[in-house]
Amino acid sequence: MILSKKNKTFKEGDWVLISYQNKKFLKKLDKNFNLNVKREVIKFEDIVGKKEGEEIKNFQIFRPTLEEIILFGLKRKTQIIYPKEAFFIAFKLDLSGKSRVLEVGVGSGALTVVLSRLAKEVFAYEISKDFCNLALKNWQKFGLCQNVKLFNEDFLKAKIKKNFFDAAFVDVKEPWHFVERLHWGLKEGKSLGFLLPTTNQISKLLESLKGFFGNVEVLEILHRYYKTVPERIRPEDRMVAHTGYLVFTKKIQKKK
Amino acid sequence: MILSKKNKTFKEGDWVLISYQNKKFLKKLDKNFNLNVKREVIKFEDIVGKKEGEEIKNFQIFRPTLEEIILFGLKRKTQIIYPKEAFFIAFKLDLSGKSRVLEVGVGSGALTVVLSRLAKEVFAYEISKDFCNLALKNWQKFGLCQNVKLFNEDFLKAKIKKNFFDAAFVDVKEPWHFVERLHWGLKEGKSLGFLLPTTNQISKLLESLKGFFGNVEVLEILHRYYKTVPERIRPEDRMVAHTGYLVFTKKIQKKK
Amino acid sequence: MILSKKNKTFKEGDWVLISYQNKKFLKKLDKNFNLNVKREVIKFEDIVGKKEGEEIKNFQIFRPTLEEIILFGLKRKTQIIYPKEAFFIAFKLDLSGKSRVLEVGVGSGALTVVLSRLAKEVFAYEISKDFCNLALKNWQKFGLCQNVKLFNEDFLKAKIKKNFFDAAFVDVKEPWHFVERLHWGLKEGKSLGFLLPTTNQISKLLESLKGFFGNVEVLEILHRYYKTVPERIRPEDRMVAHTGYLVFTKKIQKKK
Amino acid sequence: MILSKKNKTFKEGDWVLISYQNKKFLKKLDKNFNLNVKREVIKFEDIVGKKEGEEIKNFQIFRPTLEEIILFGLKRKTQIIYPKEAFFIAFKLDLSGKSRVLEVGVGSGALTVVLSRLAKEVFAYEISKDFCNLALKNWQKFGLCQNVKLFNEDFLKAKIKKNFFDAAFVDVKEPWHFVERLHWGLKEGKSLGFLLPTTNQISKLLESLKGFFGNVEVLEILHRYYKTVPERIRPEDRMVAHTGYLVFTKKIQKKK
Repeated sequence: MILSKKNKTFKEGDWVLISYQNKKFLKKLDKNFNLNVKREVIKFEDIVGKKEGEEIKNFQIFRPTLEEIILFGLKRKTQIIYPKEAFFIAFKLDLSGKSRVLEVGVGSGALTVVLSRLAKEVFAYEISKDFCNLALKNWQKFGLCQNVKLFNEDFLKAKIKKNFFDAAFVDVKEPWHFVERLHWGLKEGKSLGFLLPTTNQISKLLESLKGFFGNVEVLEILHRYYKTVPERIRPEDRMVAHTGYLVFTKKIQKKK
Repeated sequence: MILSKKNKTFKEGDWVLISYQNKKFLKKLDKNFNLNVKREVIKFEDIVGKKEGEEIKNFQIFRPTLEEIILFGLKRKTQIIYPKEAFFIAFKLDLSGKSRVLEVGVGSGALTVVLSRLAKEVFAYEISKDFCNLALKNWQKFGLCQNVKLFNEDFLKAKIKKNFFDAAFVDVKEPWHFVERLHWGLKEGKSLGFLLPTTNQISKLLESLKGFFGNVEVLEILHRYYKTVPERIRPEDRMVAHTGYLVFTKKIQKKK
Repeated sequence: MILSKKNKTFKEGDWVLISYQNKKFLKKLDKNFNLNVKREVIKFEDIVGKKEGEEIKNFQIFRPTLEEIILFGLKRKTQIIYPKEAFFIAFKLDLSGKSRVLEVGVGSGALTVVLSRLAKEVFAYEISKDFCNLALKNWQKFGLCQNVKLFNEDFLKAKIKKNFFDAAFVDVKEPWHFVERLHWGLKEGKSLGFLLPTTNQISKLLESLKGFFGNVEVLEILHRYYKTVPERIRPEDRMVAHTGYLVFTKKIQKKK
Repeated sequence: MILSKKNKTFKEGDWVLISYQNKKFLKKLDKNFNLNVKREVIKFEDIVGKKEGEEIKNFQIFRPTLEEIILFGLKRKTQIIYPKEAFFIAFKLDLSGKSRVLEVGVGSGALTVVLSRLAKEVFAYEISKDFCNLALKNWQKFGLCQNVKLFNEDFLKAKIKKNFFDAAFVDVKEPWHFVERLHWGLKEGKSLGFLLPTTNQISKLLESLKGFFGNVEVLEILHRYYKTVPERIRPEDRMVAHTGYLVFTKKIQKKK
């Protein structure tokens, strides 16, 4: 796994995160590599043999973090679950090195990358063949998700063991159809999360949870970035205002 | 560790998270236990032998998640680092099962609990004897932080190996004094984070990072919770507006 | 009107805004007046004859602004429209000294106070007798709203001239019933606003506007206050997260 | 004044606000006028003789509101004070038809337009000749600000009467130099506001107010817009995260 090559020098085939002022580029080091920013150029020969944190002209070179891989390295066909939500989800689901987590709706596989790092195993369901291929490619490119089992199946028809998962997360358009099945598959008392873009979906989902899941929380996460000039501390002019609403809940005993 | 007792029934000595409407209580199950909310009572005998997710009167019982342990279980003497920041910090520092992370300023030990879950080892420095005792007590109570080495030392005087840590986080009043030493201890290119309550501190810190650390980001995290009535979706009336500013940066080659 | 007595000294019967550290009190000056804060006392005799801005012990005395009258002076039976929204609404409706504005749903009369200051006349409809009395009492107490005509009527049954109003604002539970009638009463092209607590109401309202009103905007206003210690600039710990969603739209030619 | 021609049909020389889906254009109606959006064209002849609110193809025509004039009509050389702040400022300063308000730092004249609508008179100081000309041109174009006296002077050297203004607002880079003079010019107890882009400036300003002004408030205003599809209520993807911090305070008796 590329991420473990800490403290070694960069060599051909490595991924390198290049920062130039406040721009960032994630590139694979092959022999023809060169990057041109504002008339400054950095090439393969400039990086190979160097260590992380070196400054070459006005470029700085690093190995990418998980966040940078998600933001700059993963190909996407639709909106992904961003790190600001993914990092929260993974812990909110109470994952640990002993957890078996279920993911329904994998998309480009960005959330999976994060779940996979904290959990023991991820069982990931994605109905679209195209998305399965995209996710797999994304993970292989960076040597990630080796503890993930990807199922190209409709979760509603998949064979799921009862009380099997320690946690679950669902990112599909109409998650209310999945509630009964999620209740079946989750261990008692365990956490289930959803990402939903609209408030209309929240209404429908909350209605469908009744009698199956309790302890509901609905929230949104806002990150506000600041400029980094010490004499002029102030927020950036614009910010991301919406990526989605998060719903978390816990499995309760089904009411008869 | 209590958290692993999945799917077993509750027994004496277990921690139980009791939710009643939108209130939550984290309690230890001893023989005299009873909880009285709005004239409804739940007792030791009601819980022992039950499973997670059961409903007893209007109470629901669960095993606590890491977030609930932090919020309702840890004793604190000053402001803690809340889960909304802690969860982001742990991943932003790019921790994994291979990481050795440094924490300076442990306080009540809330962040440590989160770092400890994702990293291989945490090296935690806390100058105050009182806080060391508090953190240790907090961790032991819930069987947490077994991969943490706690040093009751002034980090500025501690013996630190060069290029030793994969990541670091600092929560002290005047972190600018620590910058040179943090540079020494961190591996090249690796991530360093800070939590600061005021913008005046951000200014001073940013000034001190120059020449040692690059790739600076300053941000704040806002969580906005919603009421959970399907027919009346709307935010809660009030929210937490500030817990602290986060600063993240990466070690660069020191300029001579 | 009390607000015009600028620069005169305080006398019996005046309203006085007393600030003590960051607490504020709005009081009427009668002979028995006294206020006790943290063991310091200020009395009638301390204030009478003094000017605005004087400091008496640790108290500071001012004449109240419109905002302070709304926040600390108006009695309320339900949630009011707060100054942060009211100030925006008045200008967003494009009011000026020539405008005749319609208000439907007066409640405690807080918004009316603001509309009244910018418009020529306010036509205010309130179906509840109790709220009419409350609003009138609130206005009289402070000598406000002399250009307001208050109708204790169901707006749906009231006699309204066609193309009569330069602007309108509606604060009722089910505003979708009013849309056709609002279209009738408003001048062509003019602005109409709504305050709604929930997103479910936004959905229903937007649906009902189709064919009658165009140029729709939906927004929410957040004010974030900061502590005022120069060496420690930081937001307050908590903030108001929700008072309501605002919808603004403009009358278009009805589609046949 | 153009804004008063309510309910009349559009004629040559009028300003027209044209909306097309969620785009807005503010244009002057001259004989050569035509606007081309997504292959649909609207011309002079399409609009002249029509009333507000008419729909022509997919265009809707209106007379501009004050907000739209500020956002789409005023030429600017630097950042202006936006309506979201300006509308709040005007009422927060407690302006009414009896108020004489001071403005220091006019810039492009956007705030002046708002103050002028609520106050009796505005005394506006602007040290730069260029900005004076720009502001005047902006105001004349729309027939605005007839109750404004514009002084192309350094406020620090201007002849100001003692206790003369009912309110004041300052938008300059180093407002701390102006505090003593603002204290001189304002009536006792009256309100003074500032707009500042950075937190460093807040610190310096707060320091300088001590002993001259009390009752300090620091805040920022955030507006969050929503998409207007009834079946998919959700915030816009991005929002304005920062235009400036507002500081409000009241004149107190100077301490000797």
